[in-house]
Amino acid sequence: MRLTRYTDYALRVMIHLGVNEGRLVSIAEIARAYDISQNNLMKVVQDLGQAGFVETIRGRAGGIRLARPATEINVGRLVRHTEAGFMVADCAHCPIAPACGLTGVFAEAIQAFLGVLDRYAVADLLDQRSQLAALLARTVEPCGGE
Amino acid sequence: MRLTRYTDYALRVMIHLGVNEGRLVSIAEIARAYDISQNNLMKVVQDLGQAGFVETIRGRAGGIRLARPATEINVGRLVRHTEAGFMVADCAHCPIAPACGLTGVFAEAIQAFLGVLDRYAVADLLDQRSQLAALLARTVEPCGGE
Repeated sequence: MRLTRYTDYALRVMIHLGVNEGRLVSIAEIARAYDISQNNLMKVVQDLGQAGFVETIRGRAGGIRLARPATEINVGRLVRHTEAGFMVADCAHCPIAPACGLTGVFAEAIQAFLGVLDRYAVADLLDQRSQLAALLARTVEPCGGE
Repeated sequence: MRLTRYTDYALRVMIHLGVNEGRLVSIAEIARAYDISQNNLMKVVQDLGQAGFVETIRGRAGGIRLARPATEINVGRLVRHTEAGFMVADCAHCPIAPACGLTGVFAEAIQAFLGVLDRYAVADLLDQRSQLAALLARTVEPCGGE
């Protein structure tokens, strides 16, 4: 069972911004930190901005930051936003969908899944903040030596 | 959030066999009913057989059937079997995995998801059995009209 790459990237962005709360971060820095494509991140960040999860400051000294304190950004709400639809199986192409008992069971299971995420804020994901900062910085600024 | 196609197919097989409980069914019939590849189904059915969910009767009059009554086959147990690993995000390729708070949150959310499935048997998915049978048969025996 997999969340979409879109959700995966959105969560990585929020964690990176949470670890670096208080300073503006560039998309390039986040892309380097996770070794992922900057183009893929652009769309995610733009969407997170439009949805009010992150704030974009334009200009040479600009960058992005969390739109609210990490303690106030709910993980369940974020994942509900990025996982539009939450179709656990390919019911759209299944001929028995109109009568299938799995539809209700899956809906109930997804609510239970999201109910757990609803209990956490982005700040709760940062308990090991100093280790996270070190892991993220390791990729941004390679130490060069062994 | 998506279950693997493997799980999707396994659930379709179990529902088809549940609807047709009491008679032997061929893989070809299941493939036609759902309009999916017989080759893809073969591996799933073989695995379900090895895991004790279905029973294969060889020979000309052979076929497959549920290994136990549909009331006794737990959906959670089945999905735990087919979804080996249950990695909700691509943590394996994420540099912050060792310190990331999502690991524990996801583990908790997955348990909640599976906890719901644990409350259902395959028989519970067949409440609309006659409608399911009609939908499955429609593809097997096209009516020829229209």
